[in-house]
Amino acid sequence: MQPGLRTVCGVLVDALSTVLREPVALTVAGRTDAGVHATGQVAHADLSPTLDTAWLVRRLARLLPPDVRVRAVSPVPPAFDARFSALRRHYRYRVATAVHGADPLRARDTLSWPFPLDVDAVNAASAGLLGEHDFAAFCKRRDGATTVRALQELRWTVDDDGVATAGVSADAFCHSMVRSLVGALLDVGRGRRPVGWPAALLTRTERASEVPVAPAHGLSLVGVDYPADADLAARAERTRRVRVPGEAGP
Amino acid sequence: MQPGLRTVCGVLVDALSTVLREPVALTVAGRTDAGVHATGQVAHADLSPTLDTAWLVRRLARLLPPDVRVRAVSPVPPAFDARFSALRRHYRYRVATAVHGADPLRARDTLSWPFPLDVDAVNAASAGLLGEHDFAAFCKRRDGATTVRALQELRWTVDDDGVATAGVSADAFCHSMVRSLVGALLDVGRGRRPVGWPAALLTRTERASEVPVAPAHGLSLVGVDYPADADLAARAERTRRVRVPGEAGP
Repeated sequence: MQPGLRTVCGVLVDALSTVLREPVALTVAGRTDAGVHATGQVAHADLSPTLDTAWLVRRLARLLPPDVRVRAVSPVPPAFDARFSALRRHYRYRVATAVHGADPLRARDTLSWPFPLDVDAVNAASAGLLGEHDFAAFCKRRDGATTVRALQELRWTVDDDGVATAGVSADAFCHSMVRSLVGALLDVGRGRRPVGWPAALLTRTERASEVPVAPAHGLSLVGVDYPADADLAARAERTRRVRVPGEAGP
Repeated sequence: MQPGLRTVCGVLVDALSTVLREPVALTVAGRTDAGVHATGQVAHADLSPTLDTAWLVRRLARLLPPDVRVRAVSPVPPAFDARFSALRRHYRYRVATAVHGADPLRARDTLSWPFPLDVDAVNAASAGLLGEHDFAAFCKRRDGATTVRALQELRWTVDDDGVATAGVSADAFCHSMVRSLVGALLDVGRGRRPVGWPAALLTRTERASEVPVAPAHGLSLVGVDYPADADLAARAERTRRVRVPGEAGP
């Protein structure tokens, strides 16, 4: 929600409030920068437990603009919180490495990067970043937000058309973290930096200005993991104790 | 090429003429209606045999707008003709059947069709259309163009997100043929027409007004097949004898 700006959250809140004829507040799993896509975003709202969720999906499909879609609506236990219950966020970054750049039909979520990409080097550099580290070098700092994150997956694959896709998963991400990791790794893939360079930056305690931030439009939030229903209440109790203000998008 | 209209062919001819500093004429494998995409279009032009094709690809990548891309440039024997040497055209039609319609990132080349789709019925109806027939019922007639075509493939698959994709191949297609076949088959898939209905229309000699024409934007030309280089001259000789005026797009 940003006053005066069209945002996914604002569009959704408007549509839900119209359909349900009452003001609806929405909590979203992760904020995304302008230009970043989400195919697997999750949000929660407190609605009537007798609501017909299939009816709501149909009504929203008709009311929402084509660029905002609600794939499913499900009831959850009271302890569920889209943001604080989340165990893991999954992102994808798409890079077209062909000389001719991105397929026009995929240009909206694919960076055109018409340069050689040494995927073995990129994957070796990526492996050096896995685990819990202070990712300050890769974060745009925000007051009070921790930059210590557990990076659980960072792997690149390349398809027959030369489109490289990075799968990136962590408990949470600090601001601009995925785009900074991708920017650093593309420099390694192009031969401008050695394989060990991104991991060497993990000793920094401040943003590293030499790390390029990859453009927003190649990035998509593709999924969010949650605990089993039975474990939600215990997790809510834990996160309440360690809740960090100002947690931000990638 | 359409005077006064921005077309893929017009944009390409302009770019080629700029790069090569001479007027360039382009022959394209298949015309596509406004709104139809092509990821596998083929065209030929008569250029200097000493031209550096890798250089031309790089120059075009920089000069062309992002929505027109040239994936590759190759030398061909003099007998090669992008249109008349073609053995087979391959099209793809994408239909999102989920209640919430098409993924916004794929809405440009995917029809939103939020209705039940009986894929077994659609595939049974499709099988009944294979082979050489007069497809007049499915063609917008153009003077002198034959409507007898050999339909070699028409198969539907559905992915986990409910996106149905039709693969359609024939020696050539008459005007609006793929979109009319898809329109008829979607009616079968929704239960509005029996499985045998599309094949029964093959006895008609005129366009069948009850056949809906599916929207252009779900359709993409994905490939064109050509004979081996050694067989091109013989084929050129044959097609010269049976060449049909007014052959048109799908």
